[in-house]
Amino acid sequence: MNQEPVEKFILIDTDAGGDDAWAIFIAVAAHRASSSTGINIVGLTTTCGNASVENVSENVTRTLLTVDENTLPIYKGMSEYMMIPFKHLEEPPYNGDDGFGDASLPDIPPRLEAEHAVAAIIRLAEEYKGKLTIIALGPLTNLAMAIKLKPEIKGYIKEVFILGGNMDGLGNTTSAAEFNFFVDPEAAAIVVNSYPPCPLIILPWEICLTATSTYAFRTETLRSLNTPQIQLMDAVEAKNLDKNRESWLPPDAVLMACALDNAIILERQDQFAGVEVNGTLTRGMLVVDKARQTGNPPNIQLITKVNVTEYEGLLIWAAGGAKSSG
Amino acid sequence: MNQEPVEKFILIDTDAGGDDAWAIFIAVAAHRASSSTGINIVGLTTTCGNASVENVSENVTRTLLTVDENTLPIYKGMSEYMMIPFKHLEEPPYNGDDGFGDASLPDIPPRLEAEHAVAAIIRLAEEYKGKLTIIALGPLTNLAMAIKLKPEIKGYIKEVFILGGNMDGLGNTTSAAEFNFFVDPEAAAIVVNSYPPCPLIILPWEICLTATSTYAFRTETLRSLNTPQIQLMDAVEAKNLDKNRESWLPPDAVLMACALDNAIILERQDQFAGVEVNGTLTRGMLVVDKARQTGNPPNIQLITKVNVTEYEGLLIWAAGGAKSSG
Amino acid sequence: MNQEPVEKFILIDTDAGGDDAWAIFIAVAAHRASSSTGINIVGLTTTCGNASVENVSENVTRTLLTVDENTLPIYKGMSEYMMIPFKHLEEPPYNGDDGFGDASLPDIPPRLEAEHAVAAIIRLAEEYKGKLTIIALGPLTNLAMAIKLKPEIKGYIKEVFILGGNMDGLGNTTSAAEFNFFVDPEAAAIVVNSYPPCPLIILPWEICLTATSTYAFRTETLRSLNTPQIQLMDAVEAKNLDKNRESWLPPDAVLMACALDNAIILERQDQFAGVEVNGTLTRGMLVVDKARQTGNPPNIQLITKVNVTEYEGLLIWAAGGAKSSG
Amino acid sequence: MNQEPVEKFILIDTDAGGDDAWAIFIAVAAHRASSSTGINIVGLTTTCGNASVENVSENVTRTLLTVDENTLPIYKGMSEYMMIPFKHLEEPPYNGDDGFGDASLPDIPPRLEAEHAVAAIIRLAEEYKGKLTIIALGPLTNLAMAIKLKPEIKGYIKEVFILGGNMDGLGNTTSAAEFNFFVDPEAAAIVVNSYPPCPLIILPWEICLTATSTYAFRTETLRSLNTPQIQLMDAVEAKNLDKNRESWLPPDAVLMACALDNAIILERQDQFAGVEVNGTLTRGMLVVDKARQTGNPPNIQLITKVNVTEYEGLLIWAAGGAKSSG
Ligand SMILES: [Ca+2]
Ligand SMILES: [Ca+2]
Ligand SMILES: [Ca+2]
Ligand SMILES: [Ca+2]
Repeated sequence: MNQEPVEKFILIDTDAGGDDAWAIFIAVAAHRASSSTGINIVGLTTTCGNASVENVSENVTRTLLTVDENTLPIYKGMSEYMMIPFKHLEEPPYNGDDGFGDASLPDIPPRLEAEHAVAAIIRLAEEYKGKLTIIALGPLTNLAMAIKLKPEIKGYIKEVFILGGNMDGLGNTTSAAEFNFFVDPEAAAIVVNSYPPCPLIILPWEICLTATSTYAFRTETLRSLNTPQIQLMDAVEAKNLDKNRESWLPPDAVLMACALDNAIILERQDQFAGVEVNGTLTRGMLVVDKARQTGNPPNIQLITKVNVTEYEGLLIWAAGGAKSSG
Repeated sequence: MNQEPVEKFILIDTDAGGDDAWAIFIAVAAHRASSSTGINIVGLTTTCGNASVENVSENVTRTLLTVDENTLPIYKGMSEYMMIPFKHLEEPPYNGDDGFGDASLPDIPPRLEAEHAVAAIIRLAEEYKGKLTIIALGPLTNLAMAIKLKPEIKGYIKEVFILGGNMDGLGNTTSAAEFNFFVDPEAAAIVVNSYPPCPLIILPWEICLTATSTYAFRTETLRSLNTPQIQLMDAVEAKNLDKNRESWLPPDAVLMACALDNAIILERQDQFAGVEVNGTLTRGMLVVDKARQTGNPPNIQLITKVNVTEYEGLLIWAAGGAKSSG
Repeated sequence: MNQEPVEKFILIDTDAGGDDAWAIFIAVAAHRASSSTGINIVGLTTTCGNASVENVSENVTRTLLTVDENTLPIYKGMSEYMMIPFKHLEEPPYNGDDGFGDASLPDIPPRLEAEHAVAAIIRLAEEYKGKLTIIALGPLTNLAMAIKLKPEIKGYIKEVFILGGNMDGLGNTTSAAEFNFFVDPEAAAIVVNSYPPCPLIILPWEICLTATSTYAFRTETLRSLNTPQIQLMDAVEAKNLDKNRESWLPPDAVLMACALDNAIILERQDQFAGVEVNGTLTRGMLVVDKARQTGNPPNIQLITKVNVTEYEGLLIWAAGGAKSSG
Repeated sequence: MNQEPVEKFILIDTDAGGDDAWAIFIAVAAHRASSSTGINIVGLTTTCGNASVENVSENVTRTLLTVDENTLPIYKGMSEYMMIPFKHLEEPPYNGDDGFGDASLPDIPPRLEAEHAVAAIIRLAEEYKGKLTIIALGPLTNLAMAIKLKPEIKGYIKEVFILGGNMDGLGNTTSAAEFNFFVDPEAAAIVVNSYPPCPLIILPWEICLTATSTYAFRTETLRSLNTPQIQLMDAVEAKNLDKNRESWLPPDAVLMACALDNAIILERQDQFAGVEVNGTLTRGMLVVDKARQTGNPPNIQLITKVNVTEYEGLLIWAAGGAKSSG
């Protein structure tokens, strides 16, 4: 974490999802250590993606409850993508029907704000004018809607960290598209086209893959901490850990680490990019003009190298273990 | 080259272009050494691309005349792309208006076959049933037209080597598309969809770049040979060599090397791929299903690593220098 | 108007535009005669289209001021279309840069509600659950945004009357698209896809044309009324009346007449339709499945015949003349 | 027919299909009466569409055999569309699997020319330079391929009559597209874009419908002729006549009548049009710029009104009945 804490106000936009939960745990750990990290979570907004917005909202509530953070405001957001309703892309869905592994978890009391996520994004962008970092862990529907409703906020937001898209056409949902961008390409396009003036830092799928951990890291190093966080995640991830015994990767946590700790991002590239909304094979692809064919100035910053050791250290810390020296 | 020569019958489809000329010189060298290489050029077909088909046809004629190969048949082909007329994409065109650097070369006598390139491809595929290797150095219009006119030839052609497309969405013409595929995406799609049964080996743009030579290799090592080939290419490439003094890359020559010498291709990948014909940002992109999202079996073979030293050795040999031991 | 007044609560969504002003005058006349018409205007929402949302909002304010209706709430809405910023399609714009003919009209005091049009649509749909008629005179951006933010309102809205789209592929902006649908096809698609359960009644461009009035009707019959309404519209329409001396057609007024007076719509068709968002030549076209090729049940009602005499009577009445007996 | 016979050389491009057979019978009748009509059939080319090109070729052979015209050359053409293989769009196909109603007709001896249809079109366009009328009754694949292979023929062909496309977005295959254009939109686009210089006269689907005959016309007036033509068509159309007892329409015959008899076309429109190749809902639609939004000069002539009585008279004549006085 930053040696000299600069105040950082963050809004987490999430479609939790177990991977998002790991990211939220990192953010909560940083928020609790705000005297040293400078990080303050100002709210969490939910959107459909891994599951319906109702399930996602409950998952976020549960994640915070697990670490007794029951006052951070949670704003329920978009129940549909820009052009189509929400539905799971595959059956059974990768993260379960409820996004949390269909793990038969105990009931929890709901506690969502009355304000809609999109309204909250606009209001917080105005309240924290020039100071708000948005960390987007899911489809970009909430943010796109906010930007369209109030284009001025593009100039108020300090920066947006985005988990989504790709840089070399590697897909994880179709041949050419990453999940968060594929399910709502119009939203992704609106956000990617929002600079200038809104600074965008994107962690593409190819770079996520470089931060893949070993199965042992998850099932031994992390599991052995046996904290409430681990107990929740062991339940949430049980089926997927059972299916894939070779490696483990919660991409949302990698982005969260990048967003909160200056030591994580080792290399960046300024690039011009757009989102393909019309392609038959490429709908949802982040098209990065790597060879500078358009002549357009950069509109995004791609994260191209991450410090995996540091990131894994943050995960241990987020899970309730000791903070490494990084 | 092959230690034990297996007879190989090749048809070169070209939009020459200086880069194509280098490739043709390699092919001619191998053809002349057919007792050791087994390689026989059965014909050359021309298409628009680097220049109009008239210019391309003259360039091919001149290339062969330079090395006194005046009996190899040249078939003039498509003057337009599948959906649009030919025109230069940029002004001035990269290889000059005439594709040969607008170098004020002396007039030469025309000598083209009467038969259309598309008809020749069909006839030769039938005559050399199971034995014809097509080496495609330009837009795939001729081959696509032949395949549509006579789909049976997909089963007769032994293999098609293709210079075109990309594997990581790196463009050289638009953000996402390589020149040969971009100018005629419908033709590229028709060809890429022609396996099964037609085997396709594609050299993508990203791998071409790994075979970039130094400026010195071109302007010292090659130039010092001072053969007719070098004299022609010094004239054809004069302007581009003047503009770019850092490196040199004739991609068509890299593909030709891959097609004719087993020592060049160090690694290949079997992949499923398609060509995007509809995208706003991605039209003409070769979409490779690297993460196996479609579940479709492979329909192309990508060349993913080439032996640059061997390839440069072939270039020296093609230019009239000594054959290296490779 | 209805003999026996049934209460009708209407929200006017407009990109005024002189044509919209005529429509608003009809609505105001009906609203003032609510004891006989049953019509109550509950608000007006503005959107970009004929002009920027700032200009449109001022135009609506001025229109109402002209008839001393200064308490009807006006909600400023979307300043951009779903996927692109607002800009005029042609220079000079058909209705002037300001949408009101650039007529150097006197300054007026602004009086807009603080609430955003999209929020107002959602709130009013909830307040007038089952009873709200929305009359959409411009691009459907506000309504689409409201529907996405709160999909439940599709079930609350009684009906939406839409001026936009076409039924026989006749364009007025491109070869195949009508202006309101062309400038924001994504919004049009979202709205057209919102039935069930939201009932949609669409006045297509081809049918608008059947309600074209003579030049004399506008410049003699209407002008001779010499009311404040006429004085405003004479200024606003001056340039266009000067250019086209053959006929006169404010399509928004035709839709308003259809929406408010049962005697206007002579024929309707239940149809299944969608909005083309991807076509090169057809983007924004309303694609009506007239020959029932899809097998889908109807999702819109097309107005296919209007009573022009009655509609012109309403215009005279709206302009301050006597109400005909219709 | 023409009072003073001007020599007219026609090439019939067909995907027969029973409707095409009716058209061919009209052409044969006119050809036999060439001393008065001036009409000479120079050949027939076949393409996939109603059925595979093999079936279509046999159907054409059989149609000619039925009227003892066994020397008119038949050239087998494209077995696939430009971008996709042939396959039936629906099961069972409207005209049967074999295009001729799967009527268990007796075997006939094959007699097809060796020359490919595409080569024949090019050759005949050259031989009859300035004098060849092409009458296209099916998908435009053959003609598009010929035009691409030899663009010069666009200047040699006198005119092309086309059965296909639409003018008001009325579909008969999808919501917005007519069959012949929908199955090969790329071919349709190539042909529609071939003027200038190639004159194109298009009979759109909407106008075909205006020439619908009564069921009695087919099953009484025509059937009662009891000629070999009628015996063939009674077998070929048996199932469809059984299904639809309300009306009868062989659109190909309407176009043939338009092409061969000056009395049939009552009204024409010069229009600018293009073919949509990218739309999700509109692929294959003929987009006619009826409201002159593009500013482009006309590139097609639409037939907008036909003389149905005269056309039905030609059908009776073609079926072996007496020629009416028309
Ligand atoms: Ca996520
Ligand atoms: Ca080339
Ligand atoms: Ca309007
Ligand atoms: Ca036909």
